[in-house]
Amino acid sequence: MRPRGHPGDNALVSERRYVITFGCPDRTGIIARISSFLAEAGGLIVEAAYHSDLDTGWFFTRQEVRADTLPFDVEELRARFAGVARSLGAESDWRIDDTAERPRVVLLVSKEGHCLYDLLGRVAAGELDVDVRAVIGNHDVLADVTRAHGIPFHHVPFPAHGTEGKAEAFAEVRKLVDEHDPHAVVLARFMQILPPELCEAWAGRAINIHHSFLPSFVGARPYHQAHARGVKLVGATCHYVTADLDAGPIIEQDVIRVDHGDSVADMVRKGRDIEKVTLARGLRWHLESRVLVHGNRTVVF
Amino acid sequence: MRPRGHPGDNALVSERRYVITFGCPDRTGIIARISSFLAEAGGLIVEAAYHSDLDTGWFFTRQEVRADTLPFDVEELRARFAGVARSLGAESDWRIDDTAERPRVVLLVSKEGHCLYDLLGRVAAGELDVDVRAVIGNHDVLADVTRAHGIPFHHVPFPAHGTEGKAEAFAEVRKLVDEHDPHAVVLARFMQILPPELCEAWAGRAINIHHSFLPSFVGARPYHQAHARGVKLVGATCHYVTADLDAGPIIEQDVIRVDHGDSVADMVRKGRDIEKVTLARGLRWHLESRVLVHGNRTVVF
Amino acid sequence: MRPRGHPGDNALVSERRYVITFGCPDRTGIIARISSFLAEAGGLIVEAAYHSDLDTGWFFTRQEVRADTLPFDVEELRARFAGVARSLGAESDWRIDDTAERPRVVLLVSKEGHCLYDLLGRVAAGELDVDVRAVIGNHDVLADVTRAHGIPFHHVPFPAHGTEGKAEAFAEVRKLVDEHDPHAVVLARFMQILPPELCEAWAGRAINIHHSFLPSFVGARPYHQAHARGVKLVGATCHYVTADLDAGPIIEQDVIRVDHGDSVADMVRKGRDIEKVTLARGLRWHLESRVLVHGNRTVVF
Amino acid sequence: MRPRGHPGDNALVSERRYVITFGCPDRTGIIARISSFLAEAGGLIVEAAYHSDLDTGWFFTRQEVRADTLPFDVEELRARFAGVARSLGAESDWRIDDTAERPRVVLLVSKEGHCLYDLLGRVAAGELDVDVRAVIGNHDVLADVTRAHGIPFHHVPFPAHGTEGKAEAFAEVRKLVDEHDPHAVVLARFMQILPPELCEAWAGRAINIHHSFLPSFVGARPYHQAHARGVKLVGATCHYVTADLDAGPIIEQDVIRVDHGDSVADMVRKGRDIEKVTLARGLRWHLESRVLVHGNRTVVF
Repeated sequence: MRPRGHPGDNALVSERRYVITFGCPDRTGIIARISSFLAEAGGLIVEAAYHSDLDTGWFFTRQEVRADTLPFDVEELRARFAGVARSLGAESDWRIDDTAERPRVVLLVSKEGHCLYDLLGRVAAGELDVDVRAVIGNHDVLADVTRAHGIPFHHVPFPAHGTEGKAEAFAEVRKLVDEHDPHAVVLARFMQILPPELCEAWAGRAINIHHSFLPSFVGARPYHQAHARGVKLVGATCHYVTADLDAGPIIEQDVIRVDHGDSVADMVRKGRDIEKVTLARGLRWHLESRVLVHGNRTVVF
Repeated sequence: MRPRGHPGDNALVSERRYVITFGCPDRTGIIARISSFLAEAGGLIVEAAYHSDLDTGWFFTRQEVRADTLPFDVEELRARFAGVARSLGAESDWRIDDTAERPRVVLLVSKEGHCLYDLLGRVAAGELDVDVRAVIGNHDVLADVTRAHGIPFHHVPFPAHGTEGKAEAFAEVRKLVDEHDPHAVVLARFMQILPPELCEAWAGRAINIHHSFLPSFVGARPYHQAHARGVKLVGATCHYVTADLDAGPIIEQDVIRVDHGDSVADMVRKGRDIEKVTLARGLRWHLESRVLVHGNRTVVF
Repeated sequence: MRPRGHPGDNALVSERRYVITFGCPDRTGIIARISSFLAEAGGLIVEAAYHSDLDTGWFFTRQEVRADTLPFDVEELRARFAGVARSLGAESDWRIDDTAERPRVVLLVSKEGHCLYDLLGRVAAGELDVDVRAVIGNHDVLADVTRAHGIPFHHVPFPAHGTEGKAEAFAEVRKLVDEHDPHAVVLARFMQILPPELCEAWAGRAINIHHSFLPSFVGARPYHQAHARGVKLVGATCHYVTADLDAGPIIEQDVIRVDHGDSVADMVRKGRDIEKVTLARGLRWHLESRVLVHGNRTVVF
Repeated sequence: MRPRGHPGDNALVSERRYVITFGCPDRTGIIARISSFLAEAGGLIVEAAYHSDLDTGWFFTRQEVRADTLPFDVEELRARFAGVARSLGAESDWRIDDTAERPRVVLLVSKEGHCLYDLLGRVAAGELDVDVRAVIGNHDVLADVTRAHGIPFHHVPFPAHGTEGKAEAFAEVRKLVDEHDPHAVVLARFMQILPPELCEAWAGRAINIHHSFLPSFVGARPYHQAHARGVKLVGATCHYVTADLDAGPIIEQDVIRVDHGDSVADMVRKGRDIEKVTLARGLRWHLESRVLVHGNRTVVF
């Protein structure tokens, strides 16, 4: 197996597209069935990716179709494609997104601002075309920068110790998030462990950046753990949040070299550059419907 | 645009496959046409990749079909596919390879052995399943190691200075190469510039490893050039040979960090690790029919 | 030659330090002379780096001394060290910086904001402890974000075509820069070529980020050049500005993979992540007195 | 903290050097004491590196002195330096190596040949100037290639299951190794866990390559573990062997990208390129006396 090969760049393409993501047990004729359906309707495929997982026998695809080449709208496309999916044995494991719908995002933060600054900068620079509806912090130190970008900031204090008041705080967070029905809830160094009911409510939409190369250094203070172990690279992992701490499906990872001269503080600083880039990539791919989850692994088209 | 997404691994898969590579002007229905043709014959696609080049309006695809799922042999597949290709306006820009045919390779070397050692080691370890038919050197220092692997070594001396005798030497090289009709002629640090007629005769099959990150440092002594310029990374480039020196279509590139403490000799040593890995990758992809050339650029599926 | 090995991290260390940088022709006893001078005064060296360049026969060193371990102030240290330097034949090729002096920086920008956003975010997050005195733009699109950080923004329009008015514009830029006597003048994607007299006035202080892996793709539109050449990696280069366009001493470089699926727009987007990280690293090292220039090359301690 | 900065390249420098490695509790004047001692004897330092570990308060240095600049031999240097070391409170934590002594290496292998091929290729190409005294395998599949390089191969069968005969086998291995008093015992994918007494006997000399980015995926079948977890990078770790499985001090690590398209077999293949390069680097640094162990961490100068 080898590299890649994908056209387009949603963020910089103005023309409207419909994005089909689909998975089903592999068998002969799936590509033919889907592509013939699109061709018959006149749909021009501008990006197509396929993956047959030989271990699990599962087939995955993602297709981008130029909206203006189809004689009907996205609702009609969904209705018609449902029949195709059904005929391939995929009742529910598919979705069609419309790039005309600007993705809504809510960010959860704590005190560390580097991921927030980075994401807001990308949005402001027009590089990441998303609608950041709100930023919610368990501290308020990042309120000013958020508001300077014209984005509402909500401060929801959490108990410093113990669990008293935690459930109420999470309920408040949930209310503030859910009113936006966001495509992504980003834990941009949020530092609080989501309770199981939130993991479930936001399954497949809650994205975390963990400051280590998972599965190394799960949990608290990963740079301290990395320093103590004497590793020569530190990393960052962008993954979906599940009830299992730091064990959800991995979207993206990256690393940077460190050496004996790097104190924990140096690792923290160097790691930030990896954290923010890894999170930004993972979030972009998620919002472009490039990430298909299967079990605890991801296909990233 | 974003990552990749490819199943399989030819080198480690024992089952026979047919590999279709194809290019034509992009339009609606190409994927449907090809995949329907295969589905109707019962062919199971185990790997599929597509690329629509928005700049040139060209469409590319590579498909791997499990041979045992088709009711006919590769000759019949070619005959039938010719009709499909013709209907899509691609008279000649396609090919079907059979993984049952073990690729034949001839290596051209000089005195530097690291790429030769690396390739022979990969073949001996079973990692690169190719038939190295011969090694040809303009010096004979690498004769022993070649023969220890049971491979014929031919010494074809070249004039040290001037051009007298050079044409004869190249004619001899050509004869020794062409008798094997190789899938790849690898210039594994050959250090001689191929004459235009050989570039043409071996077009799309002659693969060079240049010891710089092209287009930087074309020509002789690239590490000396890199050291003089004070770059912080040195690289290697695996590319098809054309009559334009070091300017052919690039298959693969990689880099490694250097710093002020690295002498030219250090750069040479560090660069070797990049050269051999970059060449090995590029050669593998070429032999797996993953590299499609379009103008002076490559699509690597 | 091999890795690295450096203690400390100025940005995160609160204790005051004096940083000695020094170069002279190599000979026996230099390290002994300098370290004995410091030891006799009671100075504790917290970071020390040496480099003997075997090609040029030049010796370089950088030493960080804990200020509170010396019985005199930085002026007295400079006065005394002058004698040491003189005895080693280095009349002027040395400097002593005081980490208590917060570095002053002026940024020059155009329309592209990613490097500006990144630097301002690092300063706001406390990661880059510098005093950004002013941002000067030949366009005013980045005025608001700059002022939101409490930093003055000056708009100095440049002629869109031709050279009329250009000298006046540069004179105005120079006035606005020089009043701050900055430690670094950062061309954060400024897109205007500095005239020779400014290159000279700011020699060793003007830092540019070029959006290619130099010496490849000098000049305008490097991502377009990279796309046309079909390279498999794009890069960024942080270098000192000299009168020779994009040919000054290189401080830092980095690269990121691209492939056939990446349009020019994709390369631009991917390249940004490399540009901003490369510039931030180069600027930090410059401000920490880690970069010693020798001819057209740098030693980065 | 930041990059590196080191002259020279032992492997390519013909002139004889003495290499001093030294560690002691940090305090004022250590560099002055050592460098003055060398300067007084006329010793020209061609490479010098220092590290003060702020966490442990430990000081480390490595110095290369040109042998012909000293008026005495290495024995006398050791005798005189012992006094210096004693005066700095470092009775035993120092060593002086002589580059005139060609390092002796014994390799332990099993069936997988890629690391062996790579190391033998480097030695044959003159890149790694070491004396490979013997290769010992618990299988004999790599006997021929070893002998083709003129190196003795010893086959020491190990019990396939259970522990009966294992102690005898290890005793035999130990005898075959110890007769060469090697500077390094390299477990080049040996796949047998050394018993505690061998870990102790070869402490600081036994070097393993583990095919994962430790501490992830300790133990057996790390690529299978990596595939199951869905990581986006696989790695390799070169470390000293201790009685704690895969937990010894790390010398070097590196990673390579993988994605959903990579089967376990693909990961194995891609990982090999990282394993062999990482092992070769770690071994070189060890043999050049660049690796100083402190607790469970390394300083790599």
